[in-house]
Amino acid sequence: MLIGVIKTGNIASSLVLDLLLDERADRKDIDVRVVTSGAKMNPADCKEVANQILKLEPDLILYSTPNPSTPGPAKIIDMLEGKRAVIIGDAPGIKIKDRLEAAALGYIFVCADSMIGARREFLDPVEMAIFNGEMLKVLSITGAFRVVYEEIDRTIGAIANKKKYLPKVIIDSDVAVSRSGIKNPYARAKAKAAYEMAEKVGKMNIKGCFTEKEPEKYILTVASAHELLRAASMLADEAREIEKAGDEVKRGPHSPKGKILKKEGLMDKPQ
Amino acid sequence: MLIGVIKTGNIASSLVLDLLLDERADRKDIDVRVVTSGAKMNPADCKEVANQILKLEPDLILYSTPNPSTPGPAKIIDMLEGKRAVIIGDAPGIKIKDRLEAAALGYIFVCADSMIGARREFLDPVEMAIFNGEMLKVLSITGAFRVVYEEIDRTIGAIANKKKYLPKVIIDSDVAVSRSGIKNPYARAKAKAAYEMAEKVGKMNIKGCFTEKEPEKYILTVASAHELLRAASMLADEAREIEKAGDEVKRGPHSPKGKILKKEGLMDKPQ
Amino acid sequence: MLIGVIKTGNIASSLVLDLLLDERADRKDIDVRVVTSGAKMNPADCKEVANQILKLEPDLILYSTPNPSTPGPAKIIDMLEGKRAVIIGDAPGIKIKDRLEAAALGYIFVCADSMIGARREFLDPVEMAIFNGEMLKVLSITGAFRVVYEEIDRTIGAIANKKKYLPKVIIDSDVAVSRSGIKNPYARAKAKAAYEMAEKVGKMNIKGCFTEKEPEKYILTVASAHELLRAASMLADEAREIEKAGDEVKRGPHSPKGKILKKEGLMDKPQ
Amino acid sequence: MLIGVIKTGNIASSLVLDLLLDERADRKDIDVRVVTSGAKMNPADCKEVANQILKLEPDLILYSTPNPSTPGPAKIIDMLEGKRAVIIGDAPGIKIKDRLEAAALGYIFVCADSMIGARREFLDPVEMAIFNGEMLKVLSITGAFRVVYEEIDRTIGAIANKKKYLPKVIIDSDVAVSRSGIKNPYARAKAKAAYEMAEKVGKMNIKGCFTEKEPEKYILTVASAHELLRAASMLADEAREIEKAGDEVKRGPHSPKGKILKKEGLMDKPQ
Amino acid sequence: MLIGVIKTGNIASSLVLDLLLDERADRKDIDVRVVTSGAKMNPADCKEVANQILKLEPDLILYSTPNPSTPGPAKIIDMLEGKRAVIIGDAPGIKIKDRLEAAALGYIFVCADSMIGARREFLDPVEMAIFNGEMLKVLSITGAFRVVYEEIDRTIGAIANKKKYLPKVIIDSDVAVSRSGIKNPYARAKAKAAYEMAEKVGKMNIKGCFTEKEPEKYILTVASAHELLRAASMLADEAREIEKAGDEVKRGPHSPKGKILKKEGLMDKPQ
Amino acid sequence: MLIGVIKTGNIASSLVLDLLLDERADRKDIDVRVVTSGAKMNPADCKEVANQILKLEPDLILYSTPNPSTPGPAKIIDMLEGKRAVIIGDAPGIKIKDRLEAAALGYIFVCADSMIGARREFLDPVEMAIFNGEMLKVLSITGAFRVVYEEIDRTIGAIANKKKYLPKVIIDSDVAVSRSGIKNPYARAKAKAAYEMAEKVGKMNIKGCFTEKEPEKYILTVASAHELLRAASMLADEAREIEKAGDEVKRGPHSPKGKILKKEGLMDKPQ
Repeated sequence: MLIGVIKTGNIASSLVLDLLLDERADRKDIDVRVVTSGAKMNPADCKEVANQILKLEPDLILYSTPNPSTPGPAKIIDMLEGKRAVIIGDAPGIKIKDRLEAAALGYIFVCADSMIGARREFLDPVEMAIFNGEMLKVLSITGAFRVVYEEIDRTIGAIANKKKYLPKVIIDSDVAVSRSGIKNPYARAKAKAAYEMAEKVGKMNIKGCFTEKEPEKYILTVASAHELLRAASMLADEAREIEKAGDEVKRGPHSPKGKILKKEGLMDKPQ
Repeated sequence: MLIGVIKTGNIASSLVLDLLLDERADRKDIDVRVVTSGAKMNPADCKEVANQILKLEPDLILYSTPNPSTPGPAKIIDMLEGKRAVIIGDAPGIKIKDRLEAAALGYIFVCADSMIGARREFLDPVEMAIFNGEMLKVLSITGAFRVVYEEIDRTIGAIANKKKYLPKVIIDSDVAVSRSGIKNPYARAKAKAAYEMAEKVGKMNIKGCFTEKEPEKYILTVASAHELLRAASMLADEAREIEKAGDEVKRGPHSPKGKILKKEGLMDKPQ
Repeated sequence: MLIGVIKTGNIASSLVLDLLLDERADRKDIDVRVVTSGAKMNPADCKEVANQILKLEPDLILYSTPNPSTPGPAKIIDMLEGKRAVIIGDAPGIKIKDRLEAAALGYIFVCADSMIGARREFLDPVEMAIFNGEMLKVLSITGAFRVVYEEIDRTIGAIANKKKYLPKVIIDSDVAVSRSGIKNPYARAKAKAAYEMAEKVGKMNIKGCFTEKEPEKYILTVASAHELLRAASMLADEAREIEKAGDEVKRGPHSPKGKILKKEGLMDKPQ
Repeated sequence: MLIGVIKTGNIASSLVLDLLLDERADRKDIDVRVVTSGAKMNPADCKEVANQILKLEPDLILYSTPNPSTPGPAKIIDMLEGKRAVIIGDAPGIKIKDRLEAAALGYIFVCADSMIGARREFLDPVEMAIFNGEMLKVLSITGAFRVVYEEIDRTIGAIANKKKYLPKVIIDSDVAVSRSGIKNPYARAKAKAAYEMAEKVGKMNIKGCFTEKEPEKYILTVASAHELLRAASMLADEAREIEKAGDEVKRGPHSPKGKILKKEGLMDKPQ
Repeated sequence: MLIGVIKTGNIASSLVLDLLLDERADRKDIDVRVVTSGAKMNPADCKEVANQILKLEPDLILYSTPNPSTPGPAKIIDMLEGKRAVIIGDAPGIKIKDRLEAAALGYIFVCADSMIGARREFLDPVEMAIFNGEMLKVLSITGAFRVVYEEIDRTIGAIANKKKYLPKVIIDSDVAVSRSGIKNPYARAKAKAAYEMAEKVGKMNIKGCFTEKEPEKYILTVASAHELLRAASMLADEAREIEKAGDEVKRGPHSPKGKILKKEGLMDKPQ
Repeated sequence: MLIGVIKTGNIASSLVLDLLLDERADRKDIDVRVVTSGAKMNPADCKEVANQILKLEPDLILYSTPNPSTPGPAKIIDMLEGKRAVIIGDAPGIKIKDRLEAAALGYIFVCADSMIGARREFLDPVEMAIFNGEMLKVLSITGAFRVVYEEIDRTIGAIANKKKYLPKVIIDSDVAVSRSGIKNPYARAKAKAAYEMAEKVGKMNIKGCFTEKEPEKYILTVASAHELLRAASMLADEAREIEKAGDEVKRGPHSPKGKILKKEGLMDKPQ
């Protein structure tokens, strides 16, 4: 089965989206092609990269983007109408939920996959990569990525079995944590807090990037948003360390046939 | 100028390679197209994704991959011969350095961009994303990503000025730290240690994935390699916190024209 | 000069309100009387404790309470109309700002002085004291308490000089940090993030205490709010540690005459 | 039942004394009135605030103060003779234990509730609030506050049942930890160490405030006492994190009728 | 039974070698004599201290030294030929394993007991003691010291029972951790990583002390090696904290008769 | 010049005493011989090891031991009378100060070099080595070891110059920190607190080893003393990290001629 992935702009979920489906590169049941226009997402770029994927006639299309209500992504969504496709987006994308429902497209909105502090005085490539690193930790530990790959695998399974399924999920802190597999209730509380913190990062960065006009103000705002994410990453890490201490880290690796296996004790065999 | 990016398999540098060039998506002088076959890298896949980029006739091709001496990547390298292209690879790639020199291709080998602990009992999508998150922190803070984007920007600049330049750089801990912009010597020492630790991760994972055969043994090995990376990420973080405490974090954001600006004090204007 | 302090219910600012004015108990220019009805704040209690203070005919009345728009506190505010009095409240109190302006009362609303996770399954006396401990750290380090005591001291000074002054301040993260005296910009960013986190705690606890009905849900919510506050306290602590590392902790002790002195280096003499 | 609370000067136990009895403000069996003269404790102030409470004819009087052997507090203790009253004090108070026994008054001395570093060069309102925040964490986690509220509740219960009971307890590290409810023995060891550290803080601050005369010396002493308390607070926090990791945090919330309920697992119902 | 201990130069294992055999100084079955020439290890010194021990005609000789292939230690090894003796050395010593086998001498090589960063610009007595402190933590927690004392005790037992036994052990990370008694698998992974890190310290210090010639370079190298060891010590500490949280720290104290007892729960009696 | 070192029993200062004098083993002006009887210190053992050193007729004798007022060490002290010798001891040794003065012997008492928690249920070789590791960190960073080696070097210098000098120093927290070379005043405060904590460890261990008789009690006491030392080590580490952040770590390496050089910036040359 061919999975076509379109990426425009960047959210942290985009970075590992295709890798989440085949973390050890030994899955036999799917092939993946990804095309992206890098950080930019104007309509022309968007149209072109979408076309590159559409030409391959994939069985399933995943399209991940920040802010899918803007013109470029909107263009791609139009092009995807009628295809079996899932939009993976961030919190600001939630507002096009109805549009997607109407177009019979699946969606997964990751509320905590927040905008970066994109001010020139603050964001250089190094700061950008650090932010994405912290965000990967938060989204993976708190359960968001587990939801993402379980939902896409379920969709793939449906296609293989000629059934209909498209995910329609908004991943807030409750959804993430409830599906995270975290067992210790305090670890769950820490994970939930970390997720909420990461979500708050987005609100602060939107304020720092679009509302505040004085450098003195917006630099402090975006810098504090990144500090907040760093703290969230540390709190998520605490949650995972608790699970390690109890030897109860849930793992769900893919079998070569694409089944999600299960295991808990580190030395156990995945089933 | 069009930059074509081919990615096969995954190294952490791949995740943010195109974003490093345009961290705020406002650069006017370049366009980027990225194509990847996901986690897999067999020759057929490799050939196909390379062709997709080659058809676009980009001014510069970046090709990032783990272990470029394996058949799939070797195929792409053959196809790139004669083009203006830069291979971005990991430590095992260093052994094809002469081949690349002969083919007049540029290269950047990031010694610390280590193989993941790819054992099914251990690596699930969540663990994979955490590993990449930690690795992004290490590679960004210790200077490796700074070298990567400075070298590619220099190449872009050379093309714009009709000059010849292709990077030929092996990023070991000395190269990374010396170009990291870290000022405090103890922070530099911490960064160097973190980089060496991340490099060691690769050696342990290669052992755990390819040499050791007993699950009891290799699970412990790959788990300890990931613990080592987590410790490296924490040590890199310490280095950056020292720089923050001195308000001397060097930042090198891109101007819209693609120039790398400079600044140090957080509230300063980039120049 | 006699300062009468009324406290109903509890916010963290209440705990140290009178101590903030005379931290070493050697101030000659003021006397303080405090009356409170403990944790409860029904109208009858409120009226009674207010009367006890009013009978003393203090020169200035401070009234601190959570949620001043509820019936008990509203009663007290009615009783204070026409007196020189300052209301110290939390974020939900902001909605009576106009009422206070109309009544010519001063006010200081501390946005981050959040509601506790008051669910029986979670909150016992020990958890309550921990929460208040963490909150004291956040409010003191991030600048909120500095604003509180500077404003009240300014009011006292105005009374002494027969001038009119009543504070009208809403302490959000910007106000707190800008008056915190924190010098290092990264420490300021950390402080701002910590303050925002503490503010978020209130939103989560309100949800956990009033909106969510299932124990499984609300226990997790209030527990995660307390985890969030603990993380905020740790981040605030990081900010102060940076200031210590630079030997630039601003201190503003009271002289025996009630003047706020200034000093920075630890071994310096306050001026 | 009416509980009258007199507070003079400040110890950390005073800050939350009445809140410990009714942490969620929903207790039906008691009413509380608190009067304090702020940070000061000269005989005139003391007499006046005690009178305010005595006029209310409470069923039980709690009087918390540092150093109850000094003139002001001694005055109040004289006034309390013959009443059902409990003195809550710090380590220096232990020396009046016999006087209290003779006067048939109850007492609870919290050995670790140490004097603050009250030197003008060091202690400003912000430092004072931080100190109290750290102290609240230590006293709550290590078991001291649990002893305080259990003892007072037992006294209240005795009054309700027309029985005689007045607490006579000196809370040293053994008493605190043995009643803390901490299960893991290493967490108990950490709690005990934290408590001893907080006790040591008092000795250092007494030296820094009363014995040492050179600013160079006493500033360092009181600053190191506060560092010691911060370390104690972190160690206490470690103890509680261990209990969280085992999901074995003991909680003893009050029922609306004032009974101390019990629970251990976070998601359990208090019984 | 008399144990004679010769020490030349310094490795961390030397510091506590004799103490490991009788940690509470109450063992009746052995007497110990130790002679050392301090930090130096030239042939004349070596010969002299060895003679001092040989004259005592001990039942068992332990000889600990860095780099036993250098002239001084080689001299001592010659002198020990034919005696019942065990060489305790570091990783560079492994190359004389065959020589020792031929001479029928026992050996224990502790791979992680690494060379210090012996550059005058960096290493002063304080830095030296810190390094040894960190190293003691790593070697004790990760299992190396457990192997050392178990092997020597086994040798002592063999002598007592007129049996032949001499240890022939190279303690790499697998050997150390497998005999460390650590139960939680993640703690084992952390311990293994810490051990590997300490081993890497040696490689970096050898480079910094012998290969690199420019101060700018070698100072950074040895400083980063010490940072690496500090990180290793913190990771080892994490491992032990996990074992504490599970109340499963294995302890093997000596009985007065020299038997190694066993216990796990902190409050248990050793058996 | 020959330095003879006698060690009986163990204190942490003993572990590195000779190494403190020649941290890089390149000092030309002194030779060192050390003899010890291991952990034990009964009179016969003590006499024998002292004789071994006395026979060498060293120019200076250093004798380090815990509790020098007990019979074994007292024996050695008698034997040293009339020699140029320095006793290095712990806090309980202070009580023989007058005896030493009368005997014209030098002394250095390290108040924080505390007794270990020598209870069989708790102390095994691993716990013993960890304790010594933590103690080395505390004593080195807080300044105690700097005093030790400066004093001994001064004595050596006096001998070389035919002058009289014998140290008579009691190292309490003030002496240690004032000679530690720590510059930042908050780092000094942390170091002082760490030193006081380590001193307190001794008091708790003496109680746990000699006063308390119930295992349930003494196990908790000695375990909490070791937790206290671990916290002290972490606080000392914080102090040093602050000095690193300011690049102001004072270093005093020995020149080959035995002079104590000075340097501060890490990349500086020692002078």
